Amino acid sequence: MQYPTPLAHLIEAYMKLPGIGEKTATRLAFYTLDMPDKDVSEFAESLSDVKAKLHQCSICGNITESDPCSICTNQERDRKTIMVVEQPKDVMAFEEMGEYDGLYHVLHGVLSPMDGIGPEEINIKSLITRLQKHDEVKEIILALNSTPEGESTAMYISKLLKPAGLKITRLAAGLAVGSDIEYANSITLKRAVQGRTEL
Amino acid sequence: MQYPTPLAHLIEAYMKLPGIGEKTATRLAFYTLDMPDKDVSEFAESLSDVKAKLHQCSICGNITESDPCSICTNQERDRKTIMVVEQPKDVMAFEEMGEYDGLYHVLHGVLSPMDGIGPEEINIKSLITRLQKHDEVKEIILALNSTPEGESTAMYISKLLKPAGLKITRLAAGLAVGSDIEYANSITLKRAVQGRTEL
Repeated sequence: MQYPTPLAHLIEAYMKLPGIGEKTATRLAFYTLDMPDKDVSEFAESLSDVKAKLHQCSICGNITESDPCSICTNQERDRKTIMVVEQPKDVMAFEEMGEYDGLYHVLHGVLSPMDGIGPEEINIKSLITRLQKHDEVKEIILALNSTPEGESTAMYISKLLKPAGLKITRLAAGLAVGSDIEYANSITLKRAVQGRTEL
Repeated sequence: MQYPTPLAHLIEAYMKLPGIGEKTATRLAFYTLDMPDKDVSEFAESLSDVKAKLHQCSICGNITESDPCSICTNQERDRKTIMVVEQPKDVMAFEEMGEYDGLYHVLHGVLSPMDGIGPEEINIKSLITRLQKHDEVKEIILALNSTPEGESTAMYISKLLKPAGLKITRLAAGLAVGSDIEYANSITLKRAVQGRTEL
């Protein structure tokens, strides 16, 4: 359909977002037209800000406004433990939980040879450098997703770091709290049985 | 969850779009973080542009970069017919069809007393003014959606304009081309039978 140029550009921009096709993008663009000027200018500004003001922390790779990030510079935290996660979102989930006070290392992805993502494409090298510099680190917690890629990335890192004599752990696998056994898949059940604990 | 401020702002901005809740907004914001700088700045620019460059045509109410719009100023078009539609999107759908070469009038809504939308809230007054100025207009096509609000808005406008001796028509109702009778609702079927044509 022939839209006025500014509208056509906005539709194209919306279509670059994940899960948004042409129909939804068009609906969003027309909706934007009817939004208050203030909301739209704030939206535009927040888009620019997110790119201009947020960077990866040069130590842990987490997103941050200041470099190094507030977690890496916080001397109150337990500096003997580093939790390795896939994405910044995971750091926020653990911070939300509030029980962990060690440091993090964000890989920004997992190994996936099928997609051409090898060890060079994710933040593994910086983890090694970090461990060489800071020998006070005693434990690495591999908090990667329980997907085939997550598991194989965990295996890779664990093989890499074992010779350094570090304690390497991974998150417990089992039933999600509040979930039903009948809906759990059999690998989850197997892990739950293997990892059973005494009451 | 505690996000860095620029990210939190972007999440809030995304949440102002229709059909986007907190989870999707968060996913989109993190996705935006990983998008190429160029795409994000184009996105921000197109948001500002759509508000700065597009206006309502002072004659027909359609959205346009130049006022009056290219349809209203096009002397090649049939100036005896005005098609009344709900939104700019409808103009674009008819233009896409390519068989109509008259003018348009965009109401920007339909009467909906429940939502406090009366004749003053939509572009009806400007339609009357327009008809008083241009007495070459012979036919008004009411191309409103086949919803209760659309139908009652059509009835309202038709009663308003009938005394002026104009020909007032509305779009044919019936089965959508390519659709199945078994899935059509009974009002559609009734209209399709009433409006049957000879082969």
